Amino acid sequence: MATTQAAHENGLSQDTVLIMMPIDPMQEVIDRLQNKFPGVKIRWQNTKSPTGVMRSEDMAPELFDGVTIVCAYLVPPASLLPKVRFVQLTSSGADQCIEHPLYKQAHIPFCTANGAHPPQIAEWVIGSWLSHQHQFDKYRAYMTDGYWEPAYQVRVQDSSGLRMGILGYGAIGRQCANLARALGMDVVAFTMRERPTPESRKDDSYCEPGTGDPDGLIPSRWFHGTTKSALNEFLAQGLDILVISLPMTAATRNLIAKEQFDILAERKTFISNVGRGGHVNTGDLIAALEQGLIRGAAVDVTDPEPLPPSHPLWKAPNLLITPHVSWVSSNYSRRLLDILEHNLTALSGVPGTSFVNLVNKELHY
Amino acid sequence: MATTQAAHENGLSQDTVLIMMPIDPMQEVIDRLQNKFPGVKIRWQNTKSPTGVMRSEDMAPELFDGVTIVCAYLVPPASLLPKVRFVQLTSSGADQCIEHPLYKQAHIPFCTANGAHPPQIAEWVIGSWLSHQHQFDKYRAYMTDGYWEPAYQVRVQDSSGLRMGILGYGAIGRQCANLARALGMDVVAFTMRERPTPESRKDDSYCEPGTGDPDGLIPSRWFHGTTKSALNEFLAQGLDILVISLPMTAATRNLIAKEQFDILAERKTFISNVGRGGHVNTGDLIAALEQGLIRGAAVDVTDPEPLPPSHPLWKAPNLLITPHVSWVSSNYSRRLLDILEHNLTALSGVPGTSFVNLVNKELHY
Repeated sequence: MATTQAAHENGLSQDTVLIMMPIDPMQEVIDRLQNKFPGVKIRWQNTKSPTGVMRSEDMAPELFDGVTIVCAYLVPPASLLPKVRFVQLTSSGADQCIEHPLYKQAHIPFCTANGAHPPQIAEWVIGSWLSHQHQFDKYRAYMTDGYWEPAYQVRVQDSSGLRMGILGYGAIGRQCANLARALGMDVVAFTMRERPTPESRKDDSYCEPGTGDPDGLIPSRWFHGTTKSALNEFLAQGLDILVISLPMTAATRNLIAKEQFDILAERKTFISNVGRGGHVNTGDLIAALEQGLIRGAAVDVTDPEPLPPSHPLWKAPNLLITPHVSWVSSNYSRRLLDILEHNLTALSGVPGTSFVNLVNKELHY
Repeated sequence: MATTQAAHENGLSQDTVLIMMPIDPMQEVIDRLQNKFPGVKIRWQNTKSPTGVMRSEDMAPELFDGVTIVCAYLVPPASLLPKVRFVQLTSSGADQCIEHPLYKQAHIPFCTANGAHPPQIAEWVIGSWLSHQHQFDKYRAYMTDGYWEPAYQVRVQDSSGLRMGILGYGAIGRQCANLARALGMDVVAFTMRERPTPESRKDDSYCEPGTGDPDGLIPSRWFHGTTKSALNEFLAQGLDILVISLPMTAATRNLIAKEQFDILAERKTFISNVGRGGHVNTGDLIAALEQGLIRGAAVDVTDPEPLPPSHPLWKAPNLLITPHVSWVSSNYSRRLLDILEHNLTALSGVPGTSFVNLVNKELHY
């Protein structure tokens, strides 16, 4: 966490906060923020439209007048926001705004919503993994004809003693690890940078109490590096499931391709991608599934997105595709607004508080 | 645990162990037992047949000669086993043998395989719950046409802050609780007998290290009783999911019927039955699903079993049925044989050891 540099003596009394989210204004949140930060102005724009998300251009220009703090997924044009001094993103990554002029201004802190997504995304990872292992699709199909499969025909492997490899040990990966530990699994982690000390293994993202692995205590081994050989060494650790929970940067594109699938083939590793579609070579994923190099996969992200109806990935065997929705949860707004409130507290200059989820603008996360 | 009453000075050197399991002999297990208990004789009968499980009548009579210890799901007739002094069941319950003459002999201890099943059954519970909550069946269906559902249409509720009620807080319920805790859920437990003290809340079933809740520390509240009103009070605790993990006894038959579904309707509780089909009134379950009183259900056990192909339960909405297979796992044999080894150690009279999973023949579990 970084200590707030520019604490205003007046707290947020001179500030106007614009919250842009695809839900109706939550009055109790507005009341709470206005009580906590006397004089602050709160505007709330429901960005949902019948066809998706509204564009800033379609909103009333006066919505942006005097805004100093914005909370949004897509940051409105800089020309509309000349006074902005803080941006709270509603996404766990910052990749959608790294070319934005406001982002490029070093003095404007950007914070992500890291930690608003891990509970539901880790549920998606573990749920799809267990669905695969326990063959729920097969039993769903048997229900059509009322077929009662004799137990002696059934082969199931429970997760106790199996190994989960987590590529990108951030807030999402850490809640996957927490669930994997409860299943009795061994967890190994891979990070780009080395994490040689207990301090370096900590993650200070927002975290629901009782979830995740904020101190980095769960992995039995840590791997790191930015080279293919470092990655390949990690992938060769006898992984039963590989969770891809990386941010998308130039360095993480196409990380998992034919060479990597050939390594994963030894254990027929199940692949769970909740990072970005571009982390995995789509053609090589199809080939790995069709050739049985891997036991299966679950992907919430694809390359391209949306996946065209005719794309061959839809028909690959032993695969679950969901349309980039693993982050969706009715609890998401509550957690996001908790993060916003925390960061507004830091921005208001309350001693001892600092931003949570501050983006490092060189690393873009 | 009960201290072994009749320790043989000779260990197990006078004993013949008959292991009846639907798998081929595991030589390394046989070797280990013979090394640990000098002089013991081990016989291993693979009970699997092309049509299911072999009957004792179809086995060579000499298989049973001199057997003093038997490890089986269905205990062979008492006439074949005149010298038996210990029975290790391969099931987590004892209900299939309570009428067996050997069971009725008070001096013959019976132990269950409690603890060999919880990891896979709890995975089944959590996997089917998360599949329901994250609507995997819907996305599986969308894959047929390559439909990419826009995220703004999606409503998902993650489990953080939701409440799991566990009816029957034994070894299986405790691993469900362990997983629920990792998901950020609140857990409440119901037991027949009151558990007023920390000691009374413990469970001494066999437990894989790191799993379950052997000390009974997870539930935020404990409920108990043998009356409908006690049960109904528990069911009224705002449960998002009710896990039924009870043993089948006369007292637990038909526990969940129309009156209980009406209580569960307030929260539209999801029902997960991994106990026995008879715990739930099948007709009332169908009605509750068809009327939307509950959000859905997953049942690994039905009444009757096998469920006939024409039974209307197959067609009830928002329901997953699996054919009593949640206990199946490739790790099951390993855990069962661990339990057997532990109990043979106790039987051999090693000081300080006692049976694990000893059946109370009045309670039948």
